[in-house]
Amino acid sequence: MSLAEASLPSIATVMAEIGRNARLGAKALAIATPEQKRRALTVAAGAINAHRKAILAANAQDMAAAEAKGISKAFLDRLLLTDARIDGIVEAVRTIAELPDPVGATIDEWDRPNGLHIERVRTPLGVIGVIFESRPNVTADAGALCIKSGNAVILRGGSDSFHSSKAIVECMLDGLHAAGLPVECLQLVPTTDRAAVGEMLKGLDGNIDVIVPRGGKTLVARVQNEARVPVFAHLEGLVHVYIDKSADLAKAVSVTLNAKMRRTGVCGAAETLLVHKDVVATHLKPIIEALIAKGCEIRGDAQVMALIPTAKPATEEDWRTEYEDAIISVKVVDSLEAAIAHIEHYSSHHTEAIISEDPASVEKFFNEIDSAILLHNASTQFADGGEFGFGGEIGIATGKMHARGPVGVEQLTSFKYRIRGNGQTRP
Amino acid sequence: MSLAEASLPSIATVMAEIGRNARLGAKALAIATPEQKRRALTVAAGAINAHRKAILAANAQDMAAAEAKGISKAFLDRLLLTDARIDGIVEAVRTIAELPDPVGATIDEWDRPNGLHIERVRTPLGVIGVIFESRPNVTADAGALCIKSGNAVILRGGSDSFHSSKAIVECMLDGLHAAGLPVECLQLVPTTDRAAVGEMLKGLDGNIDVIVPRGGKTLVARVQNEARVPVFAHLEGLVHVYIDKSADLAKAVSVTLNAKMRRTGVCGAAETLLVHKDVVATHLKPIIEALIAKGCEIRGDAQVMALIPTAKPATEEDWRTEYEDAIISVKVVDSLEAAIAHIEHYSSHHTEAIISEDPASVEKFFNEIDSAILLHNASTQFADGGEFGFGGEIGIATGKMHARGPVGVEQLTSFKYRIRGNGQTRP
Repeated sequence: MSLAEASLPSIATVMAEIGRNARLGAKALAIATPEQKRRALTVAAGAINAHRKAILAANAQDMAAAEAKGISKAFLDRLLLTDARIDGIVEAVRTIAELPDPVGATIDEWDRPNGLHIERVRTPLGVIGVIFESRPNVTADAGALCIKSGNAVILRGGSDSFHSSKAIVECMLDGLHAAGLPVECLQLVPTTDRAAVGEMLKGLDGNIDVIVPRGGKTLVARVQNEARVPVFAHLEGLVHVYIDKSADLAKAVSVTLNAKMRRTGVCGAAETLLVHKDVVATHLKPIIEALIAKGCEIRGDAQVMALIPTAKPATEEDWRTEYEDAIISVKVVDSLEAAIAHIEHYSSHHTEAIISEDPASVEKFFNEIDSAILLHNASTQFADGGEFGFGGEIGIATGKMHARGPVGVEQLTSFKYRIRGNGQTRP
Repeated sequence: MSLAEASLPSIATVMAEIGRNARLGAKALAIATPEQKRRALTVAAGAINAHRKAILAANAQDMAAAEAKGISKAFLDRLLLTDARIDGIVEAVRTIAELPDPVGATIDEWDRPNGLHIERVRTPLGVIGVIFESRPNVTADAGALCIKSGNAVILRGGSDSFHSSKAIVECMLDGLHAAGLPVECLQLVPTTDRAAVGEMLKGLDGNIDVIVPRGGKTLVARVQNEARVPVFAHLEGLVHVYIDKSADLAKAVSVTLNAKMRRTGVCGAAETLLVHKDVVATHLKPIIEALIAKGCEIRGDAQVMALIPTAKPATEEDWRTEYEDAIISVKVVDSLEAAIAHIEHYSSHHTEAIISEDPASVEKFFNEIDSAILLHNASTQFADGGEFGFGGEIGIATGKMHARGPVGVEQLTSFKYRIRGNGQTRP
């Protein structure tokens, strides 16, 4: 072993230290006042705004390196920061700063016949580990949501966005300083070594309470398979739109078009369209023609093929595929029940929409489908924490334990019971 | 391989089948009406009441076998059913039957500026696996809580209570029949082979959503270490009572006595007493004399030893020990801060109490201690779902994910979002 090797701490040692620091940060944040957390985020937003030149310069460095590596255009687009995107980051951090403080909020309270008063109040979860790929804005969004909810955060960004993330983290730390909070509340893993991710998935000796992966399916699947701590995530968004026999035609066309084509790469984008047989004659063609006009490829069952000459045949594989592209699979169903059965069989339990003017159909759809988000007469692309009014989201969860749907500050909390008595003993 | 061996299905096959059946049961229960679930439990309670002779006979069979094996007295007491205990079971199932139905209840709702109306409503979790030891009443309590919350349940009782549990399960199935619900909603594992527990811990091919262990530390530790699905549990109840310098003497004596001595084997029983130095002269002796009069052994620090001649010295090990017996460790602390630091260091984060007349001390204690249940001027033995008004509890959780404290019907639910629009598309 050379002297240099001997003197470098191992990744495991570095990460264990980060974990211990995070736990100390979490203890400080858990008892921070609402005003301290608000101030930390307000100052951080101001710093991001003020230091945008430095952030853009750091991002230019990341972009140049990524371009030199021949990375895909979609990846480069996610990595790129612009003045408008920095405006968006500043705005998101400011919005989160101004949300009601979730910690200490009373969720429920009641009196017992023996005079005990029981309150259930929100508490932070502890330490959140965020593992993300190229989007530098995750640094600010996830960091702000964690601080607001009283949780310390360990951020591990992709190597391609390292300089951009670091520049944004500096601004977040300015906020913590200004609020008198320890910098251990928000740590960026200082190495791009992949072993760091492995250490985080093992939980850093109990010093990570939840892991949130933000990135492609390969990352999410690895985290879900290997993590020994709870994970808030969704692997896929295999999203359905169902056109009921009572559907209003104009809504069916505009909502389906938006659900599929507004942005095809987001998890709330529709992938499969189900159409009730009674409206095939009236609704199917206008919807599909609108999709085709926007450049969408159609893969249909036999009835769709008969109506739409340019459609390709849908295979079993199509019903299971999240295209993340301008492609949609289309199927005619005999009934609302058949639509529900198809969705329950193929869905990733993320988001589904029904277009209908019949309240009974909507109720049945809402009751019987076990997905995180169900929409009536609205685009599936509203599946987003910002659109829910959460100020942002650290991710979207399709699991049913603890968090589900867009994960905002409330879902980053646990609770405890506070019971007040005047000397009660139990008989 | 003999013909008999060849024709017996393996434990893995039996358990996989139970898992698939449970998932079907869960689907039916998820859309059962509140009245169906209420009726299932009301009829079950009536059947337990009506068939008490058969249940007591089955229990006598279990008791005889256990006595013949020379099992401990404490174990036999947990296994024993009496008329009074059956009354208790009937009452618990009736109380749970009459609780408000949690499924479909709106937890939160709000409007967005674009006109979308967002509702967050409770949904069942799916399938709950309950692994318990000797107490036959768990069959009814856990079964009733799961059915009320729309979850299918797989019950795996200890071999010693098998006949008692089976007799109670028959009554629960009467209830499901009467309500038109499938018997797959509640299944008792038909074998006492330990391999069945191993299969449950692996999650039965995704057909168990949560595991609840009910029993001693060995069982809970095994479940927490081996389970590949979420677990609601507590390993220990290392419960503290802190006597503040402002404590009322009468409350300090009666609450401490009840917290320690009402029942010493329950998880809410106090194990360590912390006393502020300013009230050592006035409060320490009367509290300890009351404990000694009830037969409690005292293990104290140097100051306690000086005051109480019969006290034994407390070692570092004592601060870490859940005695589950008539023993208490006692320490004098210099300040509220020192009490909080001791609790945060040694507590199992289950339940802690402060005896105090100073609201500022209570607030600090409530804010800074990260335990599931915090009490002011009330006995720690109130740490119980029934005492919380939950009708019962499937267990008490000390983890912070999803459930915390006594786990009743609400904590056995997840939620989904229902969003109503009139054609909204996302810009």
